[in-house]
Amino acid sequence: MSRIAYVNGRYVPHADAAVHIEDRGYQFADGVYEVVSVHGGHLVDDGPHLDRLDRSLAELSIAPAMSRRALGLVMGQVIRRNRVRDGIVYIQMTRGVAPRDHPFPAHPSTAVVMTARRTKRAKSDPSDGGVKVITIPDIRWHRCDIKSVSLLPNVLGKQQAREAGAFEAWQVDGDGMVTEGTSTNAWIVTEGGELVTRDPGAAILNGITRLAVLEIARERGVPFIERAFSLAEARVAREAFVTSTTAFVMPVTSIDDEPVGDGSPGPLARALRERYIAYMDVD
Amino acid sequence: MSRIAYVNGRYVPHADAAVHIEDRGYQFADGVYEVVSVHGGHLVDDGPHLDRLDRSLAELSIAPAMSRRALGLVMGQVIRRNRVRDGIVYIQMTRGVAPRDHPFPAHPSTAVVMTARRTKRAKSDPSDGGVKVITIPDIRWHRCDIKSVSLLPNVLGKQQAREAGAFEAWQVDGDGMVTEGTSTNAWIVTEGGELVTRDPGAAILNGITRLAVLEIARERGVPFIERAFSLAEARVAREAFVTSTTAFVMPVTSIDDEPVGDGSPGPLARALRERYIAYMDVD
Repeated sequence: MSRIAYVNGRYVPHADAAVHIEDRGYQFADGVYEVVSVHGGHLVDDGPHLDRLDRSLAELSIAPAMSRRALGLVMGQVIRRNRVRDGIVYIQMTRGVAPRDHPFPAHPSTAVVMTARRTKRAKSDPSDGGVKVITIPDIRWHRCDIKSVSLLPNVLGKQQAREAGAFEAWQVDGDGMVTEGTSTNAWIVTEGGELVTRDPGAAILNGITRLAVLEIARERGVPFIERAFSLAEARVAREAFVTSTTAFVMPVTSIDDEPVGDGSPGPLARALRERYIAYMDVD
Repeated sequence: MSRIAYVNGRYVPHADAAVHIEDRGYQFADGVYEVVSVHGGHLVDDGPHLDRLDRSLAELSIAPAMSRRALGLVMGQVIRRNRVRDGIVYIQMTRGVAPRDHPFPAHPSTAVVMTARRTKRAKSDPSDGGVKVITIPDIRWHRCDIKSVSLLPNVLGKQQAREAGAFEAWQVDGDGMVTEGTSTNAWIVTEGGELVTRDPGAAILNGITRLAVLEIARERGVPFIERAFSLAEARVAREAFVTSTTAFVMPVTSIDDEPVGDGSPGPLARALRERYIAYMDVD
């Protein structure tokens, strides 16, 4: 079966799915995106994802391309046409096509691209060995709260991680505080047993999985605090993990090749992973 | 006559010029570009522009798409096919098409897009009234020396300028120092008469016009210094101007609605504009 993409009102074979060379997404990174998980045939937290899409668009003064209802219909079509039961939907919206000039076009027409693809079904795998992270300076712009396609520093950071044999690179700001991974939020359980993740603000993307995990912690009475934590704190943490739409909750077992705790996935990280996957099952 | 674009080996009508939705330029801003001026039928400083393109590609580990000679041939074709005698050539290269994933693809194939368009012929216009600039915080990433398409903050800054009725927004770093405009380099003649522009480094793009104007200053014995200057210095400067491929040398007559000097284009800015346009004439 060939893949189908949605591009500006049409469903087209993936191989033929194209945008104009003067789409501002291509020339200026003038656009935003979302990745929504499909789990057992249903969308996970599509409401919060589409709320965040609206927010990103609003922050950039890009007009929404269609109503929430229409967007939902297209998402459903893209999932069905690609027969995705477990996987992801990718949605990108840009300020559209216009002769190249930095300011907003006088009459912009928001462009929309949507794709879906299958991934392995999320499982709560107790044998999971966790992942490695490295740390790198955070060199990104000052509006990381906007989920823009201006992802070049994230690409470079993720590539550094890959070259180091790691899953992710945690970015560290000028004050020595961890902001987040290149495509995940960062969490630790401190030496003192405190569950910590960075407070939302311009320095991080407020992850939808991050929010769901905070809610799980709240429901289960796990104390947590949203604040900046330092790399020094992370180095002596009992546990560490990352969250994202595609990694769910993923234990981190080493930071810069130094083991976190005893070097195996921490108990709270494993419990939260299990609970998050159960949450997706019933969502 | 319809416009022609070059896209990955083919010359196509501009209206049909498209790239795949999974071109990494579209999804990750994972690409670079150059804009080269065409003046009286010849390219202005194409050597330095292509040198900088090579440097940008190298900094991002993107393989050059073709030899310098081949690139020159394509540029010539694009100019001829669009009958551009005065205008610009736009060159964009990205890490190519690959299934969406942050790290570099295993086997990337660099994508190339080239367009040309006519603009008004540069003239040394003594009646030119100069332009206004506003100032905004510099919120960009830390590698502004790479001419990447990750231009979203530049877009937002230029839009702010436009909404304020200004030509450009000068970006000011956390230390109160001017870095550059959103698509131009920034220059002042200080209260003490010193010609100053920011030294090249990660905080600015080392403009080709900037370099040419430095060379003109050198040849004409105009003393200058490359160093960071503060917004406070700019506010009391005798003169100010910007340089870029498309603005050449453009006098700045007000900063944040306060006049620079007596509010008319400064004598050095005018002389450098005239000299730069003469340089393009004979280049």
